[in-house]
Amino acid sequence: MSAFDPESIDVVACDVFGTTVDWYSGVRDTAAEVFGPLGVDLDTATFADDWRAMYLPALEQVESGARPFANLDVLHRESLDRLLDGHGVDRLVGNDARERLVRAWHRLPAWPDAAEGLARLRGRYVVATLSNGGLAMQTRLMKTTGLPFDCILSADMMRTYKPALQTYRGAATLLDMDPARILMVAAHGWDIDGARGAGLRTAFLERPQEKGPHRNADRADDTTSDLAVTSFIDLAQQLGC
Amino acid sequence: MSAFDPESIDVVACDVFGTTVDWYSGVRDTAAEVFGPLGVDLDTATFADDWRAMYLPALEQVESGARPFANLDVLHRESLDRLLDGHGVDRLVGNDARERLVRAWHRLPAWPDAAEGLARLRGRYVVATLSNGGLAMQTRLMKTTGLPFDCILSADMMRTYKPALQTYRGAATLLDMDPARILMVAAHGWDIDGARGAGLRTAFLERPQEKGPHRNADRADDTTSDLAVTSFIDLAQQLGC
Repeated sequence: MSAFDPESIDVVACDVFGTTVDWYSGVRDTAAEVFGPLGVDLDTATFADDWRAMYLPALEQVESGARPFANLDVLHRESLDRLLDGHGVDRLVGNDARERLVRAWHRLPAWPDAAEGLARLRGRYVVATLSNGGLAMQTRLMKTTGLPFDCILSADMMRTYKPALQTYRGAATLLDMDPARILMVAAHGWDIDGARGAGLRTAFLERPQEKGPHRNADRADDTTSDLAVTSFIDLAQQLGC
Repeated sequence: MSAFDPESIDVVACDVFGTTVDWYSGVRDTAAEVFGPLGVDLDTATFADDWRAMYLPALEQVESGARPFANLDVLHRESLDRLLDGHGVDRLVGNDARERLVRAWHRLPAWPDAAEGLARLRGRYVVATLSNGGLAMQTRLMKTTGLPFDCILSADMMRTYKPALQTYRGAATLLDMDPARILMVAAHGWDIDGARGAGLRTAFLERPQEKGPHRNADRADDTTSDLAVTSFIDLAQQLGC
């Protein structure tokens, strides 16, 4: 890892799901609340895990052009329907319960270091989200978490998903910024790889618990990034904020 | 004006230049700082006025398809170059000074009621900007003013300008919201008319000093809006926030 000059960037762009907020706990807990009264006997941790595992293949359908752009709520609902059907609980879970599960992704807990780390980064940089979540979804999510972003950037502005190059390049165009002056922060190797390929600088933020206890989270060592950090506070420190 | 139900909307979308921030004082004052040392003898109040007057015709060039989309910084620079040339001071004002004038639009004072009014509105609604200013420009502007928006919506996301229908409709799509559940707040009749035409609800915010002492500001009586207010605090009060 080469020395990184904090002056070489103007914008810190943050992935959201897994990197900034804890989707695993949030989705698992909402699933427990929804399934309990309906008598749905599924392990909610495995359910959260399995639902998220359908995410990248769903994005790939859009990126490959196999289907037209649809926002993440639509993709979540489709994969949820398939998942419930696969578990044979299709008839137990009505439309309202499904909508509530889809909206669980709009109300997730922030990782404990996010508020302080982002606030410190904001003192020096423009701090944006850059997420595959839609603008509406992210806006509600940040309103409930209270996290202090300067602006929200969403895949639906570009009508394509990360890791497609155009998502990162489109964000740079909206930010009116050379991609090399944007630092992408993410807990996923595929996002770091996409950002690097689009000419952004990268910081891998390790979230060992991102996928819960059953799956291994991505690790910094498995990809190439300009920085490797363990929290937003660590990132702020490494950048001298 | 019919009775307006505060429950009938979820989003308050705010025009920025003139409605939320005071472009006139900001641009006039920067022009004074820039022109003084260069020996440019122009009345800076009239200069600010004349520059802004070139704004709607510049947008019209994009909306009509006469030229491809260019962001507001580019349009401001082009009209500035023409204006300086017209005053015969072309050779006195170098590139750095011109860049500084264009960036004046990124650092404007908020109207005194904006911070309190917007904070109150945010307690109940999603509060967004919806401006012809680009995302980068608005992000810097809101970072300096500290105004508390939930998200920033910009014409460059839609690659068209207000009052084109697609600007308002595109914003509604990104907000994942029926246009009728969005209240557009603006100090300009053309913006209110555009929003109403796109199916949004409207609040005319009167800013009698918007164009300084030399020109008349738009007035609520000259158009049709759901609400007429005198400040963001008045709007918050009328909506029970």
